[in-house]
Amino acid sequence: MLGFTVVAISLAADSNVEQAVRDADEQWSKVAGARDVDKTVAFYAEDAMVLPPNAPMVTSKPGIRDLWKTLLGSLSDISWKTTHVQAAKSGEMAVLVGTYQLTMKDGTKDKGKYCEVWTKQADGKWKCTTDTFSSDLPASPPTETK
Amino acid sequence: MLGFTVVAISLAADSNVEQAVRDADEQWSKVAGARDVDKTVAFYAEDAMVLPPNAPMVTSKPGIRDLWKTLLGSLSDISWKTTHVQAAKSGEMAVLVGTYQLTMKDGTKDKGKYCEVWTKQADGKWKCTTDTFSSDLPASPPTETK
Repeated sequence: MLGFTVVAISLAADSNVEQAVRDADEQWSKVAGARDVDKTVAFYAEDAMVLPPNAPMVTSKPGIRDLWKTLLGSLSDISWKTTHVQAAKSGEMAVLVGTYQLTMKDGTKDKGKYCEVWTKQADGKWKCTTDTFSSDLPASPPTETK
Repeated sequence: MLGFTVVAISLAADSNVEQAVRDADEQWSKVAGARDVDKTVAFYAEDAMVLPPNAPMVTSKPGIRDLWKTLLGSLSDISWKTTHVQAAKSGEMAVLVGTYQLTMKDGTKDKGKYCEVWTKQADGKWKCTTDTFSSDLPASPPTETK
């Protein structure tokens, strides 16, 4: 019975972690969809890394803020949804994979996928520590006019 | 002393996990650099997901093999190096972030970054379960001729 109890607690912990990060990620998509730069950037840990396509890795909060300010300023809507969660048994980190869709202000639509690493912080809050995403669509040059 | 011992064991475990995944990743870069498709694909778990830029997510081993066969067939060299490792305290998963560089057969060079999730399998071997990467360079259309 002890073994069973330990397994049951472990499964419950995994399930709690998965739900916590799914909930946080859903909130994140909502604030990004509302184009709120500050609230969007607040989901990143202080030491977060963002790996955007066609640009070098960004490893500072001001750099991440600039990236989101530019992105949210150029689009009319964005949303994403997690499709896979892999939580560590120790309950302090989880990897989320999912798909996004967005519409630029000029009407151009994009869709793609992402991989986010979430880490439980010292205060118990979940923050994104690594964020990477890329389009599903064929590459187009940055200067292309539609 | 018990607390100290537990912490010491935990740190040693983290360090062992980090070294194990770094070693596996270094071997992976070598077999890819030798353009060995089978050995390269063998580093993925059966249920691995690859998130390539400008293409949909690939979630099957045959799909992943096709991706690498095309990629390794079009380049003359590729290598990568992990710069950050985040290992779960429970020791069964780790996230690696690093940079890659490659040269296509036509001489075009590319460099970029990646995020790999590694998971310890039932047989104790480490395999890549999620792999995503993107170029640091500005987007160019797929039909562009150099």
